[in-house]
Amino acid sequence: MNLNDQSGSASGPEIGVEIHSLMTELFPICRSITGDGFRKTLGILGRHIPLTVHEVPSGTRVFDWTVPKEWNIRDAFIKDRKGKRIVDFQRSNLHVVSYSLPVRAILPLAELKRHLHTLPGQPDLVPYKTAYYSEDWGFCLSHRQLLGLEEGDYEVVIDSTLEDGSLTYGESYVKGATEDEILVSIHACHPSLANDNLSGVGLATMLARHLGSAERRFSYRFLFIPGTIGAITWLCLNEGKLGKIKAGLVVAGAGDGGDVTYQRSRRGDAEIDWAAAHVLGHAARPGRLLDFRPYGYDERQYCSPGFDLPVGRFSRTPFGEYPEYHTSGDDMTFVSAGSLADSFRKILDIFEVLEGNRTYRNVNPKGEPQLGRRGLYAAEDEKNLATLWVLNLSDGGHSLLDIAERSALPFETVREAARILEKAGLLVERTGPDGVKT
Amino acid sequence: MNLNDQSGSASGPEIGVEIHSLMTELFPICRSITGDGFRKTLGILGRHIPLTVHEVPSGTRVFDWTVPKEWNIRDAFIKDRKGKRIVDFQRSNLHVVSYSLPVRAILPLAELKRHLHTLPGQPDLVPYKTAYYSEDWGFCLSHRQLLGLEEGDYEVVIDSTLEDGSLTYGESYVKGATEDEILVSIHACHPSLANDNLSGVGLATMLARHLGSAERRFSYRFLFIPGTIGAITWLCLNEGKLGKIKAGLVVAGAGDGGDVTYQRSRRGDAEIDWAAAHVLGHAARPGRLLDFRPYGYDERQYCSPGFDLPVGRFSRTPFGEYPEYHTSGDDMTFVSAGSLADSFRKILDIFEVLEGNRTYRNVNPKGEPQLGRRGLYAAEDEKNLATLWVLNLSDGGHSLLDIAERSALPFETVREAARILEKAGLLVERTGPDGVKT
Amino acid sequence: MNLNDQSGSASGPEIGVEIHSLMTELFPICRSITGDGFRKTLGILGRHIPLTVHEVPSGTRVFDWTVPKEWNIRDAFIKDRKGKRIVDFQRSNLHVVSYSLPVRAILPLAELKRHLHTLPGQPDLVPYKTAYYSEDWGFCLSHRQLLGLEEGDYEVVIDSTLEDGSLTYGESYVKGATEDEILVSIHACHPSLANDNLSGVGLATMLARHLGSAERRFSYRFLFIPGTIGAITWLCLNEGKLGKIKAGLVVAGAGDGGDVTYQRSRRGDAEIDWAAAHVLGHAARPGRLLDFRPYGYDERQYCSPGFDLPVGRFSRTPFGEYPEYHTSGDDMTFVSAGSLADSFRKILDIFEVLEGNRTYRNVNPKGEPQLGRRGLYAAEDEKNLATLWVLNLSDGGHSLLDIAERSALPFETVREAARILEKAGLLVERTGPDGVKT
Repeated sequence: MNLNDQSGSASGPEIGVEIHSLMTELFPICRSITGDGFRKTLGILGRHIPLTVHEVPSGTRVFDWTVPKEWNIRDAFIKDRKGKRIVDFQRSNLHVVSYSLPVRAILPLAELKRHLHTLPGQPDLVPYKTAYYSEDWGFCLSHRQLLGLEEGDYEVVIDSTLEDGSLTYGESYVKGATEDEILVSIHACHPSLANDNLSGVGLATMLARHLGSAERRFSYRFLFIPGTIGAITWLCLNEGKLGKIKAGLVVAGAGDGGDVTYQRSRRGDAEIDWAAAHVLGHAARPGRLLDFRPYGYDERQYCSPGFDLPVGRFSRTPFGEYPEYHTSGDDMTFVSAGSLADSFRKILDIFEVLEGNRTYRNVNPKGEPQLGRRGLYAAEDEKNLATLWVLNLSDGGHSLLDIAERSALPFETVREAARILEKAGLLVERTGPDGVKT
Repeated sequence: MNLNDQSGSASGPEIGVEIHSLMTELFPICRSITGDGFRKTLGILGRHIPLTVHEVPSGTRVFDWTVPKEWNIRDAFIKDRKGKRIVDFQRSNLHVVSYSLPVRAILPLAELKRHLHTLPGQPDLVPYKTAYYSEDWGFCLSHRQLLGLEEGDYEVVIDSTLEDGSLTYGESYVKGATEDEILVSIHACHPSLANDNLSGVGLATMLARHLGSAERRFSYRFLFIPGTIGAITWLCLNEGKLGKIKAGLVVAGAGDGGDVTYQRSRRGDAEIDWAAAHVLGHAARPGRLLDFRPYGYDERQYCSPGFDLPVGRFSRTPFGEYPEYHTSGDDMTFVSAGSLADSFRKILDIFEVLEGNRTYRNVNPKGEPQLGRRGLYAAEDEKNLATLWVLNLSDGGHSLLDIAERSALPFETVREAARILEKAGLLVERTGPDGVKT
Repeated sequence: MNLNDQSGSASGPEIGVEIHSLMTELFPICRSITGDGFRKTLGILGRHIPLTVHEVPSGTRVFDWTVPKEWNIRDAFIKDRKGKRIVDFQRSNLHVVSYSLPVRAILPLAELKRHLHTLPGQPDLVPYKTAYYSEDWGFCLSHRQLLGLEEGDYEVVIDSTLEDGSLTYGESYVKGATEDEILVSIHACHPSLANDNLSGVGLATMLARHLGSAERRFSYRFLFIPGTIGAITWLCLNEGKLGKIKAGLVVAGAGDGGDVTYQRSRRGDAEIDWAAAHVLGHAARPGRLLDFRPYGYDERQYCSPGFDLPVGRFSRTPFGEYPEYHTSGDDMTFVSAGSLADSFRKILDIFEVLEGNRTYRNVNPKGEPQLGRRGLYAAEDEKNLATLWVLNLSDGGHSLLDIAERSALPFETVREAARILEKAGLLVERTGPDGVKT
């Protein structure tokens, strides 16, 4: 299998344009951790990939948490004395604090200000704010606009509901040759923010579509969930099946112009950590590797000590390091088709390493086998080297990825050498005690 | 408990003045590895702290060694032809080689010179010399004075005794909540030398006094002993109790102007080694970490292979690296109240880490617990981070010090987070198989 | 024992002259992986050392390989139209591709060229080529000569035979106090090439002679074999005895002007790897350490996964890094007596470390023993330090080489300290469960 056939349209530069276009369609929707915006988003994704939509009722206990009430919003604004909508949800859903309680009031500026959020250090940007678990309401606007507000009364309307309903999430399962699975988890609960995390939504959708058409050893599970509560809900409802997860990625902030950053799983030496390190280490443009920290996206939940799953995080510029993060600056101009295509390719490269990583036994371990009479001496030095490394280290204790790392050869070269040696009868895949390939 | 309450007088800058003053009182006494000078020193310390004085008879076998005869000295001098005391024990006890046999003689300069010790490379300093296990006598003087001596006869008197008696040492035991103990070992056998090792004597005395007034998990044992033979004697007499020692420090040369140096125990990864590394690594003025070498002070004995105790060494400039070492240059002007106060604080910081270092289990290990509804989201990022790190790594396998090292957060921040989480019922301390907290 | 007594003639600079002279005698012989050239070479070595010559019949199965037919050659040339020998085996045996089939033909230049090998990038050098397992023939010449060849017919003669016979190898076994053995493996199958590998042949011969006259703990086995097929043959015929091999060296390319390079065994942490690292690390002229790669000389066979023997490689400039490699440039002027003597000394130094490396127990492990009364305080600091390190780390778990590495002291200093301490009754050698020294 070759997941990442660069000659195919699926992973050429045009995939970036396709992802960007899907993100553009999703951008205006007002998503939150529950509600119709999330459902509408899943509806659009369902046009591209098979998607199961789950609804989990408000009040359901999920470990230490409870599924919250469902929030929906139709309209919201602040009007000045002349009746002009000076802050308008219809222009940008960032203007309303997510999960704001409904309100209809006339307030003097001083009182209104207690519900206004701005970024004094970035006076032209509107911040993104939420009030999930605190019953409150508020508006976000640019600090420059705030400074221009005149004294007097303002009409404030938030036409929202916060009622029993359900938490919605989407799941796309792409079945492979085995039930061992690779998890890709995407938080899809942010309103009009592009990099965080429509980039993840778009990438995962196109990855799911692409993988559906390729032969694979692993099954792939794509989750489109609200951050934190969604991951905890999914983990709670699927606790018995977590043993099948052999690797996982949280993909977030993967469309900006920065270099790729991979944050290792809590374990630090999971197979996906080595696979990502290999791909980033051999890339033309080098990536950054970070150790696990319990501060970030949903890897916090997958890597909590009770699960400790082998889940890393794939991003470009880390969330703390770009000023547009969680502001109106994170719009569709902040991401590019080129970066999205590069992220798409690198994630596929990582999956390709996982798909191809096997452990073999050299069936002629005493001395080298005579390669010449089998026509296995390759003209190119690197191929020859890969052949010798695979034969030498295939003692049942080294995977092909181990061999690639020790030899400093590209994984694909090592894997190709193993494929040829296996075909020539010089290698057999290591099997477990019950005859299962391990 | 907070051993190091910087608002209290015990660890503010005035503690340095207090230590310096005690050292000044002790400075003129002629100490050796046995004898009345050592007893007099312990008598003064006993005014500050509870102190048990032990006497071990000459001839007692202690492992491969034998407690030597007791040495005492009343007077010693060299007189020139005019009857003038040109070298005078009364002016400085460094002038007599420690353990010199008694002598009364008239000697020509040539013969006298065989008993004179100087430092040609440091012509203004008087060296410190001993003759513990070789029956001999001698005087120390500056090389400049030696060069000025005229030919002729000199009267030489050493009014000393070397007779059966005993080896004296002092022990101050500060009982804590458990019998697990921290050992602080001080060699107190040098005559008028300030940094080596009245600094250790003064620091340990004030540490014992300070710890006596604080609530502590550990018991602390302070030893004031003659170097080498004292440590071997104490180890021999207390061999059955060594299992209680959880950590230890030899404190020596801790009053000069250099940076703090910590030499790791022979094990290299004992808890005290990590605690000291943490304190030195987070200090405003960075300290130096050295690996164990079997050459130095009494850590040589505690870290001999038959004991291999977790004992490190706390110094400022290491003994081989300052020219005043073992000369009259190591006087009270060579040490400062500021350096002594800094050493005092850093040793307390190390003990504070040991006192506070526990291992917990997160009782909600599956996903993060919902901190918001418990009011546990801290305003400051570092506190929040500490909370998340403690929850994530409290799987029973990581101590708070492990967590502080992995997160690069100050130990006290991590410990405070754990304290709050424990209070909220989110953490429980790990207990051993018999229910004992471990 | 001191294998490397630099005052003796055996390891002074003259040994280099002696090795160089032996190589000069061997240089003109046309060796290949079988045949009379190999036998003649062994005949000359047998004048210097006891040598057993083995003959293994063509067709013998050795693991995945078969002993090939025996190749012999009497003459070969290319004559131009005037009957002039323009390429002549009698001038240099490199001119004929090794294992060339017999041929007698008149060929036009165009057809002849398909059998001519040159080095366009090194136009004045004649390459070294072989055709062991492909039935073919060919000539090697300088590219400059090729360019000067005129159109027309050429007479080509290779008077060779390729027939059933045998593979020949030599073995010199130098018995020591124990049957534990150190293997030295030399490929001796190259024709007129000096560094690769007459340097190895000459070094091993003189090492075998020298070790035969010294008292040794280990037995030493020197193999003079054809590359690859010889190692595989020897391994196959001696498989039951491989457990005796405690260390081994492949010596090749050890006479050129470059620094010494040691390539670690596949294990990477075998005793010989540490011994070689120690010797190279303490040498006046620093050496290079390389990790194992399955590409090189016969260490490929000894370190194949079915054997994984502790065999490293000792070279000067690695084979890939000098342009004279496998060309007529690798002649007797490319190697020097000085480099050969240096290689000889360093290999002996490595063996010396292995010979002297023991593990002891300090019989007074509680505190330091009193060295003073035994007269064991050395004047020199380094000796004193070595004494203290040996006492401190001789807990049965550290060899003298471990102690030398941890203390950064020269092995010989550490070993001398141990010898003195053992004599004083303060150390005993560690013994295994059956009382055997381990």
